Amino acid sequence: MSVYFYGCITMDGYLADKNHNLNWLHQTGSIEDTGFSDFYRSMDITIMGKRTFNEISKSENVSDIYPTTQNYVFTHSAEPLPYGYTAKTCDVTAFVNAVDKNKNIWVIGGSTILSPLLDCNLVDFLIIQIAPVLLGDGISLFTQKESLNRFYLKDVKKYGQFAELIYSKQ
Amino acid sequence: MSVYFYGCITMDGYLADKNHNLNWLHQTGSIEDTGFSDFYRSMDITIMGKRTFNEISKSENVSDIYPTTQNYVFTHSAEPLPYGYTAKTCDVTAFVNAVDKNKNIWVIGGSTILSPLLDCNLVDFLIIQIAPVLLGDGISLFTQKESLNRFYLKDVKKYGQFAELIYSKQ
Repeated sequence: MSVYFYGCITMDGYLADKNHNLNWLHQTGSIEDTGFSDFYRSMDITIMGKRTFNEISKSENVSDIYPTTQNYVFTHSAEPLPYGYTAKTCDVTAFVNAVDKNKNIWVIGGSTILSPLLDCNLVDFLIIQIAPVLLGDGISLFTQKESLNRFYLKDVKKYGQFAELIYSKQ
Repeated sequence: MSVYFYGCITMDGYLADKNHNLNWLHQTGSIEDTGFSDFYRSMDITIMGKRTFNEISKSENVSDIYPTTQNYVFTHSAEPLPYGYTAKTCDVTAFVNAVDKNKNIWVIGGSTILSPLLDCNLVDFLIIQIAPVLLGDGISLFTQKESLNRFYLKDVKKYGQFAELIYSKQ
């Protein structure tokens, strides 16, 4: 079982602006310009927080966005989720530790899911696209606890205006 | 006249840990493994804050570190500086605006010098090495005001365990 973070941030480390706005990202280019398709095909499970799900669910066909993965939303809300998404109320680290050893998990979006996994040393790969913008304020990707956590830089790529950095834990 | 930021940060955007410690950087590799020499040769002037100077001045031969540039330290302290460094008490944006048009300025280290220049749109190039570590807390490079500020990604490079991202304003 391997846990991947794959996603885009600004040069100053924000996933979105304060109002969850991603205009700066859409103006930079499309995720389809990157290696996303190959990445997604190799994933079995996605996990995300409720806030990330709320953003995704603004799309027209929310059930078709991640069609080949099992998709879990960590939430304490009793609101029913659309087809293709399963609510989870347990701790995300407990969930990840219980996943089959041959499955790949993609951590989508927010730091509320990523941070506890980083704190428990449960993230195996970080694949980060950096958009060439500064925002000055917003929602930070990295909010894990203070601790020196070293990864290994495997590769750097340039997809249009995105710099992609590929890190592994081992 | 062009203003360059050139320096190393962690994946989570820190120049140093809370105690100004750079062990994580030294354990990653040496700046000499990167294109630093070529970069430095093309600079005419360096500017830095007092805190960055204090870190540099712990070196044995502080006057030899930046031998071919004019080196300015922005400080309100009356303490004399070693040979090779000139104290400046004026505003850093006023200083930069008064520099000869054919000179290249390197902003060394801290956000106290970089941020007002970013706020005034006076930074022409950002050359950032990213070390493959997370710290979780420390001294952030980017502390400029909230504002969408777009650069252009010119190139990405890999120097050992450092990812280098090269951005220009135009």
